[in-house]
Amino acid sequence: MRKLLTTLCLSVSISSAYATTNQDIGADNIIMVVADGMGPTYTTAYRYFQDNPETNKVETTIFDKYLVGTSSTYPAKMSGYVTDSAASATALSTGVKSYNGAIGVDVNKKPLLTVLEHAKTLNMKTGVVVTSQVNHATPASYLAHNESRKNYDAIANSYVDEKINNNVKFDVLLGGGWKYFIREDRNLVEELQQQGFQYVDKYDDLANLRVGKPALGLFADVGLPWALDDEKGRLANMTSHALRLLDNDKPFFMLVEASQVDWAGHSNDIAAALLEMADLDATMQVLEQFVAKNPNTTVILTADHSTGGVTLGVNGDYLWKPEIIHRMKHSPNFIAKQLSEEKLSKAKVNELFNFELTEEEIKAIFSKQDEVFADSELASWKKVRAIEKEIKEIIDVRTYTGWTTSGHTAVDVPVIAFGKHAAVFAGNQDNTDIAKKIFNLIDSTQQ
Amino acid sequence: MRKLLTTLCLSVSISSAYATTNQDIGADNIIMVVADGMGPTYTTAYRYFQDNPETNKVETTIFDKYLVGTSSTYPAKMSGYVTDSAASATALSTGVKSYNGAIGVDVNKKPLLTVLEHAKTLNMKTGVVVTSQVNHATPASYLAHNESRKNYDAIANSYVDEKINNNVKFDVLLGGGWKYFIREDRNLVEELQQQGFQYVDKYDDLANLRVGKPALGLFADVGLPWALDDEKGRLANMTSHALRLLDNDKPFFMLVEASQVDWAGHSNDIAAALLEMADLDATMQVLEQFVAKNPNTTVILTADHSTGGVTLGVNGDYLWKPEIIHRMKHSPNFIAKQLSEEKLSKAKVNELFNFELTEEEIKAIFSKQDEVFADSELASWKKVRAIEKEIKEIIDVRTYTGWTTSGHTAVDVPVIAFGKHAAVFAGNQDNTDIAKKIFNLIDSTQQ
Repeated sequence: MRKLLTTLCLSVSISSAYATTNQDIGADNIIMVVADGMGPTYTTAYRYFQDNPETNKVETTIFDKYLVGTSSTYPAKMSGYVTDSAASATALSTGVKSYNGAIGVDVNKKPLLTVLEHAKTLNMKTGVVVTSQVNHATPASYLAHNESRKNYDAIANSYVDEKINNNVKFDVLLGGGWKYFIREDRNLVEELQQQGFQYVDKYDDLANLRVGKPALGLFADVGLPWALDDEKGRLANMTSHALRLLDNDKPFFMLVEASQVDWAGHSNDIAAALLEMADLDATMQVLEQFVAKNPNTTVILTADHSTGGVTLGVNGDYLWKPEIIHRMKHSPNFIAKQLSEEKLSKAKVNELFNFELTEEEIKAIFSKQDEVFADSELASWKKVRAIEKEIKEIIDVRTYTGWTTSGHTAVDVPVIAFGKHAAVFAGNQDNTDIAKKIFNLIDSTQQ
Repeated sequence: MRKLLTTLCLSVSISSAYATTNQDIGADNIIMVVADGMGPTYTTAYRYFQDNPETNKVETTIFDKYLVGTSSTYPAKMSGYVTDSAASATALSTGVKSYNGAIGVDVNKKPLLTVLEHAKTLNMKTGVVVTSQVNHATPASYLAHNESRKNYDAIANSYVDEKINNNVKFDVLLGGGWKYFIREDRNLVEELQQQGFQYVDKYDDLANLRVGKPALGLFADVGLPWALDDEKGRLANMTSHALRLLDNDKPFFMLVEASQVDWAGHSNDIAAALLEMADLDATMQVLEQFVAKNPNTTVILTADHSTGGVTLGVNGDYLWKPEIIHRMKHSPNFIAKQLSEEKLSKAKVNELFNFELTEEEIKAIFSKQDEVFADSELASWKKVRAIEKEIKEIIDVRTYTGWTTSGHTAVDVPVIAFGKHAAVFAGNQDNTDIAKKIFNLIDSTQQ
């Protein structure tokens, strides 16, 4: 694989159809932000979620401020019109359509050069910051080449084994994934430490990471906890530290992924989704401040697809009411875990939700508890899931939120950009165009 | 009302915050196209619908080619975040938020100056071309002022009674609406003819309309038939004729509405929706050709909201397959009408659908027929509706289309623009901003 990749790096010729007109001196930073699953309903929902009901106007968001266009997301034709995260991230990272499940490989399973690899080959610094495990489909599509996103261990191994100019491909890697990095057969954390990496496994220790040495931070076994259950601004915090570490003598390419908007969509969980969006909002504000100080930076935010078929308004009602979600301090999943273990008083249940449930809602929850407790054969995760479904239904009814699927949908996604070359991303484009434009920005500013 | 309106015309001061930088000579044509209900899923769906499955790539659409941004659609805060067509059309026509149901009036039910009225006051020609009745919410919000969209007769009356510079507000008015224009108490068609209007009531007679005289064309009792059941390109055809009549010695403002994308959405009818989109596509191509010959023209297309909570992909499947809809020659409503009257052979049913139904699908239809025929009390429109629902379900299952509501949703809608001042509409904006920009274009090019 390593040999093939090197060949690829030398032989792939990037189209110049997307050359910018900007004749600038010196090299630029490029920050690609992927909000996994963030279709247009999520950015719209977030506007109304963060709207101050006390004012007569609706406050706009950072997503509104910098929207420049939209992107189509379809995979290679063999996979139809609805993409998965792997095919779409591969399109965004390489400029080539592939099949659902593909990680940085084409329809013939041949490795493709990614924008991150291209940047590294040109001696740019590279960083990856995500809220999923760091070897999940999106980051993997920038860092690895595998015929299947499911080969988590092999993908993690390749992070350590594949080299560009004798080094691993990333200078900073932050997210979740102990399970895949600290295994019986290999301890990839130790291997990276032996290669000169510093390592932290608590958010609080991020501040200890020093500039000048590559850095690995893993903060969870798989993905990080929901934003709703975690520290405020977990992605924003990791991104701040990554910027501090990357912003040095060399220009950098950074991938930031708000991975769990998608997971909330799959789970049809509007509360979790909105809090993931809030974390993304905070992250975009960190990036906006960075660009203000470093105008030679371009930030692009898009989604790989939309998830859940979420709609604001449902069942004929012309309403969407996100207000109660502001009161929630725990995710439906967290609440369900408590309620799958014991029966609590009505007061305690209200405390968990942090808003007052109606008699009917309480009854629905208690009767779901009775049902799962009565079935002694039921696995505990199934108990949690059943109660969680009941909780999410209460929130959907309260907020007038609709869903059509536990999977993805084909709707075009927003493209948001600011900084030096933001204008390049204006209008409707395909996800492959975004990669082509980034290859071009790297080439045109690196020469 | 007339007096108040005149006062308004004189006193409304339009913000200059949206002035274009284009320093041009002479006045410009402005064509506002509203695709009622066309949220982002409809433009996406249409791309995959019109895609040639024989080629390896996905062909882009005219909507893709000219997408410049998105628009928020929320009504005045008293109506929440999900708009109806009246409030949103009022925002688009006047630049002011109002309550759901409002036609060209503010939250205090006071009339607001519309862009069409402003154009007419400045001696521009004005035209309105729609596929709904001409006094439906969207056209009414440009031409009338009424506290409720439901006051169809009063709105139609006002078209004849309200004057600007001693004339009615429109030079061309095409769409449906005999029911409201030819009534026992008033015959508004005759009244307009007495005021110098020429009148046609068949598409074929559109060619007889002469330049230089105002024109009225009404082609249906209420709305026009579905595009799927009507002549090919009915909106495109009407728009061509309106352009021929309006494009004269004076600059013009024209409103074109693809009214029935919304109706298909309300009905959760993906086949009808896609054919309405095809008619809109043909219309946009007519406008593109017009702009090529008349570069002093700006065309803006947007939606007032999205309808139906439609999703491409449903129930966990990563698929959307619109292919069979290409085969359909009749709408589900048309087919249901036939099947509500008599039992047909399997071969005849297949002929109506124009694709071969599975045994299960045929069985579902026959059993629904049995059910409605067994109920002798059931009103005939209810029989049609029950069978139509069955037909649409078959199509949804075949195409993997999902829906969450018979009403509207709050998702931001696409903004598509081409021609002279298209760039003014770039980025995310509110629907009120679109009106403000049009007021400004009118003012800046009329001076």
